[in-house]
Amino acid sequence: MDEYKLLNNIKSPSDIKKFNNEETDLLCKEIRTLLINTVSENGGHLASNLGTVELTVALHKCFDSPNDAIIFDVGHQAYTHKLLTGRFDKFSTLRKKGGISGFTRPEESEHDIFYSGHAGVAVSQAAGIAEANKIKGNKNFAVAVIGDGSFAGGMVYEALNAAGSSDKRLIVILNDNEMSISQNVGALAHNLARVRAKPEYYRFKAGTEKFLNKIPVIGKSFSNHLFRLKTALKNILYSSSFFEDFGFRYMGPIDGHDIDLLCDVFNAAKMVEIPVLIHVNTVKGRGFDLAEKSPENYHGISPAESHFDKEKNEIDTFSSVFGKYLCTFAEKDKRICAVTAAMSIGTGLESFAEKYPERFFDVGIAEEHAVTFCSGLSAAGLIPVFAVYSTFLQRCFDQLIHDGALQKRKMIIAVDRAGFVGSDGETHQGIYDISMLSGIPGTTVYSPSSYIETGHYFYRALYKDSGVVIIRYPKGCQPLLPEDFKSSENDFDIFGNTNSEITVVTYGRLFADVLSLSKKYNIKIVKLNKIKPLNPKLFEVLKKCNNIIFFEECVKSGSVGEKFASVLLEQGYKGRFSHKAIDDCFVAQATVSDQMHNYGLDFYSIEKYIIDNMNGA
Amino acid sequence: MDEYKLLNNIKSPSDIKKFNNEETDLLCKEIRTLLINTVSENGGHLASNLGTVELTVALHKCFDSPNDAIIFDVGHQAYTHKLLTGRFDKFSTLRKKGGISGFTRPEESEHDIFYSGHAGVAVSQAAGIAEANKIKGNKNFAVAVIGDGSFAGGMVYEALNAAGSSDKRLIVILNDNEMSISQNVGALAHNLARVRAKPEYYRFKAGTEKFLNKIPVIGKSFSNHLFRLKTALKNILYSSSFFEDFGFRYMGPIDGHDIDLLCDVFNAAKMVEIPVLIHVNTVKGRGFDLAEKSPENYHGISPAESHFDKEKNEIDTFSSVFGKYLCTFAEKDKRICAVTAAMSIGTGLESFAEKYPERFFDVGIAEEHAVTFCSGLSAAGLIPVFAVYSTFLQRCFDQLIHDGALQKRKMIIAVDRAGFVGSDGETHQGIYDISMLSGIPGTTVYSPSSYIETGHYFYRALYKDSGVVIIRYPKGCQPLLPEDFKSSENDFDIFGNTNSEITVVTYGRLFADVLSLSKKYNIKIVKLNKIKPLNPKLFEVLKKCNNIIFFEECVKSGSVGEKFASVLLEQGYKGRFSHKAIDDCFVAQATVSDQMHNYGLDFYSIEKYIIDNMNGA
Repeated sequence: MDEYKLLNNIKSPSDIKKFNNEETDLLCKEIRTLLINTVSENGGHLASNLGTVELTVALHKCFDSPNDAIIFDVGHQAYTHKLLTGRFDKFSTLRKKGGISGFTRPEESEHDIFYSGHAGVAVSQAAGIAEANKIKGNKNFAVAVIGDGSFAGGMVYEALNAAGSSDKRLIVILNDNEMSISQNVGALAHNLARVRAKPEYYRFKAGTEKFLNKIPVIGKSFSNHLFRLKTALKNILYSSSFFEDFGFRYMGPIDGHDIDLLCDVFNAAKMVEIPVLIHVNTVKGRGFDLAEKSPENYHGISPAESHFDKEKNEIDTFSSVFGKYLCTFAEKDKRICAVTAAMSIGTGLESFAEKYPERFFDVGIAEEHAVTFCSGLSAAGLIPVFAVYSTFLQRCFDQLIHDGALQKRKMIIAVDRAGFVGSDGETHQGIYDISMLSGIPGTTVYSPSSYIETGHYFYRALYKDSGVVIIRYPKGCQPLLPEDFKSSENDFDIFGNTNSEITVVTYGRLFADVLSLSKKYNIKIVKLNKIKPLNPKLFEVLKKCNNIIFFEECVKSGSVGEKFASVLLEQGYKGRFSHKAIDDCFVAQATVSDQMHNYGLDFYSIEKYIIDNMNGA
Repeated sequence: MDEYKLLNNIKSPSDIKKFNNEETDLLCKEIRTLLINTVSENGGHLASNLGTVELTVALHKCFDSPNDAIIFDVGHQAYTHKLLTGRFDKFSTLRKKGGISGFTRPEESEHDIFYSGHAGVAVSQAAGIAEANKIKGNKNFAVAVIGDGSFAGGMVYEALNAAGSSDKRLIVILNDNEMSISQNVGALAHNLARVRAKPEYYRFKAGTEKFLNKIPVIGKSFSNHLFRLKTALKNILYSSSFFEDFGFRYMGPIDGHDIDLLCDVFNAAKMVEIPVLIHVNTVKGRGFDLAEKSPENYHGISPAESHFDKEKNEIDTFSSVFGKYLCTFAEKDKRICAVTAAMSIGTGLESFAEKYPERFFDVGIAEEHAVTFCSGLSAAGLIPVFAVYSTFLQRCFDQLIHDGALQKRKMIIAVDRAGFVGSDGETHQGIYDISMLSGIPGTTVYSPSSYIETGHYFYRALYKDSGVVIIRYPKGCQPLLPEDFKSSENDFDIFGNTNSEITVVTYGRLFADVLSLSKKYNIKIVKLNKIKPLNPKLFEVLKKCNNIIFFEECVKSGSVGEKFASVLLEQGYKGRFSHKAIDDCFVAQATVSDQMHNYGLDFYSIEKYIIDNMNGA
């Protein structure tokens, strides 16, 4: 462990407070080495963590965590924070089942204040803590560290607006690295880039700001004066008072890799008596050549891509297949537009974006706007297709009702990562969309099991259905289906032994396992393709069954299975019914197959469930 | 109809385009008279509509609706728009069953582009239409009219950010009247107020701006020059470039009651080649003394308050009772905080706000921030109570999962207006919360039927339960319960004839009707108090029943009844089951009792349902 001789002795942030410059530099080097080694092994977020090493070290030098709450927005850039708060020993378990999470997680440490994973929430959380500190009469700080990508989302502005112009001890650190998950979009990003590009700033900064920060602070009034001065200087340099319009004191932009400077500014910010926004410039992938040059490729890394020789992945996934169909349809139909919320690569839209830039819209991490923007496109006669991860679709429930379904106009939502998602853990599971979507009047929801079906139902969504149509499919590849398997375009299909006593109902990727079990066991399978609205003919078939088993990969409450039970019972069904789904709990990180197993939805669990059922259990 | 001789002849907006100043003035007078008369009769939004008469007339003079899309955010300020687009004849049916909606509604007119009702969406909608116009190659404009209150919400910023710095024909009109539904809150509001208060501006405005606007425009370059000049002047006056940071050309603030000036600015804005934000100052309640002096009291008016002699309403409602309990508990427990999203009056928080200002937080129309802010308060050991209308809770589904339930900390959500809400129509029904909340792991949901129960379960939420606890109750008053009715503190209670063949299950305000039917018919009643998680003992009781009828006032999909059916069926229930709820449709405006009737949930429909069931139907 000589490689990590400093890290090895850090049990809490207090251990680094007295490090001299040389030790601090060495610490940062050790951290970078460890980050690269661990992420190459386990997968995870590399570039963003390499970019925030110095920032995090400076935060823990200047603030007193956990009394001062340091809150990382999204939380995927908190690896250094984990290493400095007693988790070096376990860091090799990063993102593994039972191991250290890739996000902040209160169960791991008192220094992780919140479970995190979705963007844009940190300022609101910090504002709440700062307000509570004020009520409780203590002098602790709440510090939110939030990336520029989150500024495409609305929540940050809600929080800035609500928290500004107060006397809370709230510090917001805008970690500006010029890119969110795919790339930063929108006018504000341009504006920040423009600010950064002003040479006067850097010329000035090198001397004056450091000088200003070094002035010993004698009492509050002087400190305030100092900041008025700095604000005036800044205004001249940037002629922008954007954050001050929200009532924040603005400081920056400063070099986020200069620990001395960061500490000076943090210590100065602690003396300001209104909320402060500190604008920090960092370089994603700092200290690792490949990642620094193309951080986008190193944002989220799968273990398979371990040796940093990432190339274009040529294996099809549901995402890439969806993207290909989209291009095919869009070539013939000029009304088709594609919308993404900073997930163009994850959702397979790169080709579309290249081929049809005038019909491609990346609105940034702004799912609410995305849906309502689609509503506008649709009102003007176009056919918007919004590709989004299931977990982020949660952000636009109201918009799906109010600006989607209620408007009764065509809008297609392509829900990617529906179901278990693996190592991202609790915050990213795609298990709530069925419950959410089922309650929205007038929607149509398809859950294909294969690539070909994805195309079929996408076509149906485009040209047969009306209103809001959802196609949901899982992360990764199509499950293994027999070569002779024929997809239909029906709402549902029947497989296996149609005379069997036992009827298994399922949909999506679980179908493949159930189908293969039907070779071994005497079961009938009802495969759902359209899961909302349910075709009434389904119940004509099922009413005649004696024993129905339902498997689905989503939360039980509000699931398709519950709706089945309700309809069957109302129609006088007297047979057996059992239902396997995820019952009122959060799903922790593990591989997808482990998660399937944990919730009784993998091949062997399903097999056992069927056998037990046959034996009358 | 002499009173409305101009209005009477307006069939479409083109009829007003050639009105001279005198006619336009007279038209505005007629409109104001009609607004006051109709709202005094039918209820509705008065102050906001009186404030936007001239603005709307000017919009229809300068733009070519519906080719140019004029989109009213929230849509409750669109009465004048309705009068100018062929709906004068039917205006007396405002907000009545089958009549003109109090919001924009495409079914009524091609000039209403969207169903509206929730705040902050118009810029996104307009951006979509503007983008589509560009793709389609036409020269139409998309105009969003949005109040300053909506700028507390995040969606506007998402839209400004995504739409700015483009060449879309997009015009955003910020209708700045210094108050949203209760009062404008937050730093940005302060900032806008500061801008307005600068005397230099008004001195300058009186002469120069009008002069600048009057300069005949000779070609685009001159127009652009003119705006550069104005922008520079504005920057000096305001030293703020807030909207320009988003890539919008900023024009204003201008007097929103000066039709000539408005038209000059609109015509000028049409020549700018980037999106424009026009900042308009209007006076809520303009032209009606009482409303102008205290617009807050005239925001939304019920028919009962018709003669404008509105006084403090002394009749208890679920909202006011909740507010009283909150004060009682908060007096003893200093950890209790109250949070609202611009609904302090609607949700009964006024007394709390007065008594405990340091623990009261109105975050503006920003439900997402509200929940996550609560998460922060909770993390620091306080007990946040977020009071919110059911319909607006939809805005924070993701936050309830990610920043609420997942964090496993105490947070109470008081869901007001749960169930039918009456004349506000499709956009405001509180019928989705059960489906939405039921899918969130670990939450507890209570649905009291009376004031006393509201107190009981509020207490339980505070001191017995953990995590996110929801108490949901309907709009208005407690339904009539027998004097000897005793509330329990159980998860469920049994009433009526416990030996009856027929078991009626229900909760919330429907219980009162069912209870009174039990005097007349031989039925057993299972009254649910806690609707999630369901107490397993419930099913021990119900499994023994032969005939279960479930009534609930929410969408069927994802409802409690579906969950009941699922559990019963899994437990081998062989009896009858029927379930009355709202099945996959939007609920239009009418009185609450009409809505109850339309969906089979009023006293007589429930009675008929039970009789039919007894007769074997």
